[in-house]
Amino acid sequence: MPVLQPIVNLAELLYQKGVTDVIVSPGSRSAPLTLAVARHPKLRVRVIADERSAGFIALGLAQQCINNRQPRPVAIICTSGSAVYNLAPAIAEAYFQEIPLVLLTADRPREWVHQQDGQTIFQAGIFGQHVKRSYDLPADYGHPDARWYIERSVNEALNLSGLTPLGPVHVNVPLREPFYPKEGETFHYEPVRIIDALPVQPELPASVWHQLLREWEGAERKLIAVGQMSYHPELTAILQKISDELAVPVVGEIISNLHQNGVFITQSDTFLSSAAGEDWLQKLRPELLITCGHSFLTRNLKTFLRKNSAPQHWHIQPSADRIVDSFQSLTKLIPTGPLYFFEKLFADLDYQRFLQGDEDEEEQEFLQRWQNADRRAGKLVQDALRPAEPFVEWAAVQTILEQLPQHSILHLANSMPVRYANLCGIRADQQIAVSANRGTSGIDGCLSTAVGAALATDQIVTIFVGDVAFFYDRNALWNPYLPANLRIVLFNNHGGHIFRMIDGSAQQPELETYFETEQPLSGRASAEEAGIDYRSCRTTDELLAALTGFFDKGSTARLLEVFTDKRVNADMFQPYKAQVKQQFGGR
Amino acid sequence: MPVLQPIVNLAELLYQKGVTDVIVSPGSRSAPLTLAVARHPKLRVRVIADERSAGFIALGLAQQCINNRQPRPVAIICTSGSAVYNLAPAIAEAYFQEIPLVLLTADRPREWVHQQDGQTIFQAGIFGQHVKRSYDLPADYGHPDARWYIERSVNEALNLSGLTPLGPVHVNVPLREPFYPKEGETFHYEPVRIIDALPVQPELPASVWHQLLREWEGAERKLIAVGQMSYHPELTAILQKISDELAVPVVGEIISNLHQNGVFITQSDTFLSSAAGEDWLQKLRPELLITCGHSFLTRNLKTFLRKNSAPQHWHIQPSADRIVDSFQSLTKLIPTGPLYFFEKLFADLDYQRFLQGDEDEEEQEFLQRWQNADRRAGKLVQDALRPAEPFVEWAAVQTILEQLPQHSILHLANSMPVRYANLCGIRADQQIAVSANRGTSGIDGCLSTAVGAALATDQIVTIFVGDVAFFYDRNALWNPYLPANLRIVLFNNHGGHIFRMIDGSAQQPELETYFETEQPLSGRASAEEAGIDYRSCRTTDELLAALTGFFDKGSTARLLEVFTDKRVNADMFQPYKAQVKQQFGGR
Repeated sequence: MPVLQPIVNLAELLYQKGVTDVIVSPGSRSAPLTLAVARHPKLRVRVIADERSAGFIALGLAQQCINNRQPRPVAIICTSGSAVYNLAPAIAEAYFQEIPLVLLTADRPREWVHQQDGQTIFQAGIFGQHVKRSYDLPADYGHPDARWYIERSVNEALNLSGLTPLGPVHVNVPLREPFYPKEGETFHYEPVRIIDALPVQPELPASVWHQLLREWEGAERKLIAVGQMSYHPELTAILQKISDELAVPVVGEIISNLHQNGVFITQSDTFLSSAAGEDWLQKLRPELLITCGHSFLTRNLKTFLRKNSAPQHWHIQPSADRIVDSFQSLTKLIPTGPLYFFEKLFADLDYQRFLQGDEDEEEQEFLQRWQNADRRAGKLVQDALRPAEPFVEWAAVQTILEQLPQHSILHLANSMPVRYANLCGIRADQQIAVSANRGTSGIDGCLSTAVGAALATDQIVTIFVGDVAFFYDRNALWNPYLPANLRIVLFNNHGGHIFRMIDGSAQQPELETYFETEQPLSGRASAEEAGIDYRSCRTTDELLAALTGFFDKGSTARLLEVFTDKRVNADMFQPYKAQVKQQFGGR
Repeated sequence: MPVLQPIVNLAELLYQKGVTDVIVSPGSRSAPLTLAVARHPKLRVRVIADERSAGFIALGLAQQCINNRQPRPVAIICTSGSAVYNLAPAIAEAYFQEIPLVLLTADRPREWVHQQDGQTIFQAGIFGQHVKRSYDLPADYGHPDARWYIERSVNEALNLSGLTPLGPVHVNVPLREPFYPKEGETFHYEPVRIIDALPVQPELPASVWHQLLREWEGAERKLIAVGQMSYHPELTAILQKISDELAVPVVGEIISNLHQNGVFITQSDTFLSSAAGEDWLQKLRPELLITCGHSFLTRNLKTFLRKNSAPQHWHIQPSADRIVDSFQSLTKLIPTGPLYFFEKLFADLDYQRFLQGDEDEEEQEFLQRWQNADRRAGKLVQDALRPAEPFVEWAAVQTILEQLPQHSILHLANSMPVRYANLCGIRADQQIAVSANRGTSGIDGCLSTAVGAALATDQIVTIFVGDVAFFYDRNALWNPYLPANLRIVLFNNHGGHIFRMIDGSAQQPELETYFETEQPLSGRASAEEAGIDYRSCRTTDELLAALTGFFDKGSTARLLEVFTDKRVNADMFQPYKAQVKQQFGGR
């Protein structure tokens, strides 16, 4: 048996456990891992030089596998030393966004750490609490127990990354020289032992359901608020039914993937902006709040729910091991899936309703209060966006959103793009699946994530990204895999525009120098370097012209750069703010 | 007192403790820290958007302060969330390279961690063993003990980063809203309490010196080997005296800053390449090995010293708390400074020699054996580099090294540039100070480090960097501070050329796809975007023309791109390898 046979077998183990894609960053210490996956006949291996981008590309791939309803971990291989730390931003995002990744980091054997040898840092447990678990494999395989430990640990790591909550796991792989097989030496993948963890469906006992139904019936005003969720038509359908037939307002943001269908509340960022304490807002306060999904995007919605906290707050989350109390009002954790929960809830209530008759007027009134505010806010936004001149980012976002192809995928980079897009909203009939890195909400890997997602689907993947996030992560485009279905919309206002848009930094004399930090670049050079079709616009007419054919299938990715003036963008926001204040009160 | 007064005071504390430079990456949570340093009249603050680059720019600044003989920590401020993790590669490098940095990372107050709020990760202790210590400040300052704790902790952090071994310290700063002062509110920097740790000079007691001198006298063949050290003329002078007058070979590499003066052994990578076990090499084996400095660069020297280990090995390192046993032969740690040690050693031995007469023949012979091998290796290298055609990287490195301005600073990026330059060596009379990120030996921040160094000096700072390292870290050029004294020499062979040069990967059929990973870019676009003067060459004549005036002072930084063919580079290395084998034996 070749000395490194247990490492060769890891590739087979990955494959048998359902891994199909591996992202590799080149290195010498990691060569045995690289060769093991590269020579495996079934694994799809891509090589990305910059580990920071590699991590986010893997995350995008795994995220899109979840959207495709085929969740499976994506494996990442990197060499020893600071290479590992360059993965950390993506790992933190994956942990909080609950995306399954398996990191295989090559290392020197333990005894060489801190001995002034190259590319050696403290790798065991390096990601701290940002991975679900960290494994440190042995460097010597002579004893059969060592091989048992490797096989068992990697089985466990792969199982764990796929158990809810999904997430990244770290397998540190110390490797002794020689790393390379002799010339012409072929790899033999031995049969590996697979230890599967069978899936379970967490269901609530009948007695618990009875109690929940009693409490539901006892609460006059119910509100359902949905945090970030992947696109999920069945869940959308049941929530729409609950809203329609049981008169319960359902609030979502653009990252919740509950889009504008005349039922869901999608404009809360506009009409809740006066959360500071208008009387009329208190009439929107629920008695029972039910939440599900991950994080919420806007401060306005969060502040509203914190300041008008419900006496009862149920949160549906896959595991009860941690209390996430975003609104400081949680009273019950319901550790199950939201689809199961809402379908069973609706069925039981529907049966009761059949027995007892319709819901009461107060509930209808509560729903209408939310829906009216939402409609008024939507009209206010449309009015604000109507003028074609001057050309501003927010209106450009709206125009492009309307033209997104049906059934396509939209990635929203952090900072302004996700906020603008949320203010606009998307029509439900467009059937757009929205993703955003809201686990840690960094700008560091948004573009790479979209590249990764586009590699996992044939649908058009569009990313809206600001200039700072784009150039920060421009190495996303420094690889030979850019898929033809990728569409980049780069909103270039030459700086960190968000600081001009938020209260606080906007008022500081240091705004331009220390916050906005003007940057002069255009994306043209990056597009040319990457062999991407490039177009740009500076007016509404130019934008409409540039959009012609932009989303059509083609042979290369495309980049549309939307140039706007930061001062005009900020100025044109003022009439909107004034209107909001006039109609909804507050600041 | 404004709520955030203790945070405002931190800026004054930094200044009072000797910090002059602060690198800030923009953020909202970090605004109080940013404003505190930005408004401080004495701190020099620069804003860098990409935290990964910001970390390495800070490292380069602090590294150059050490070279300037004014060691002082550079402060880094970043916002909460994955921004912090983007600093990690630079922090690991700073830890192992022993460069003082003070990281002030804004955070949410503890109770908001893992509550699905944006830009929140587990920041307390996030850098693990890669910082000297980690502090987690309180978020509430009402109680005077909390203010005492902040002042004391930051005093300690700054002291600690400046104690040998120098290194990074982490101060995590949870901050509550509101972050921003009211419009027009001015900052008042209160008097702060400074707690200084007085410097001490570690000296060996007389009895210990007597024992060391007895052991020195008892060993026939002594060898001094110097790992990475900053440029240090006094140390160089005493080592030269020891070699000359006491007949002790002194081995250095290019990163040791002991350059070619006819005395020091600088070509060991060539003549020790047969370390696997030639008889003549055993005659180079020392009875007493004395080492100082940080890591060694070449495998050949390390393998020689491991395989021919000295019965006695003394290592001079500033602190005895950790055993770094790079050659698996260490017998004595000498926890003092090398200048003190070698000056006292020489003085004592010189006095003994005056009393007892000259050194013996065996010592002279041992020195000559090392120096002869070194001279022969040097000639072999010069012969290998003589042909002007075909144009190869190694010869281009030599040509440019010869033209470096006197008293200038040379940064060598990892992977091939540092290896080529070490094979060439530098003439001592050029008085070049060489730096390289050999703490973790990553390619991730070499360019940013050089940018940082150039900000801390008026001397010309030249960096030799390969194309993968250049593009990996191209955000080094994405800031408005690029100093006119920066010279970038980009060796572009369109891939990770090192994998073609080292045994093992070069022989794999996967070489091109999975290791070398060809990349098509040229640095021209990056230079143009950054407003840097650009020139390029593809032949020796073009190189010589391009070098005309390249190092002259000017108004902008300059980039020289040296294009070569990877296959020709590798082919032209073969005759050198054959010559080495013929003259020195081995592989």
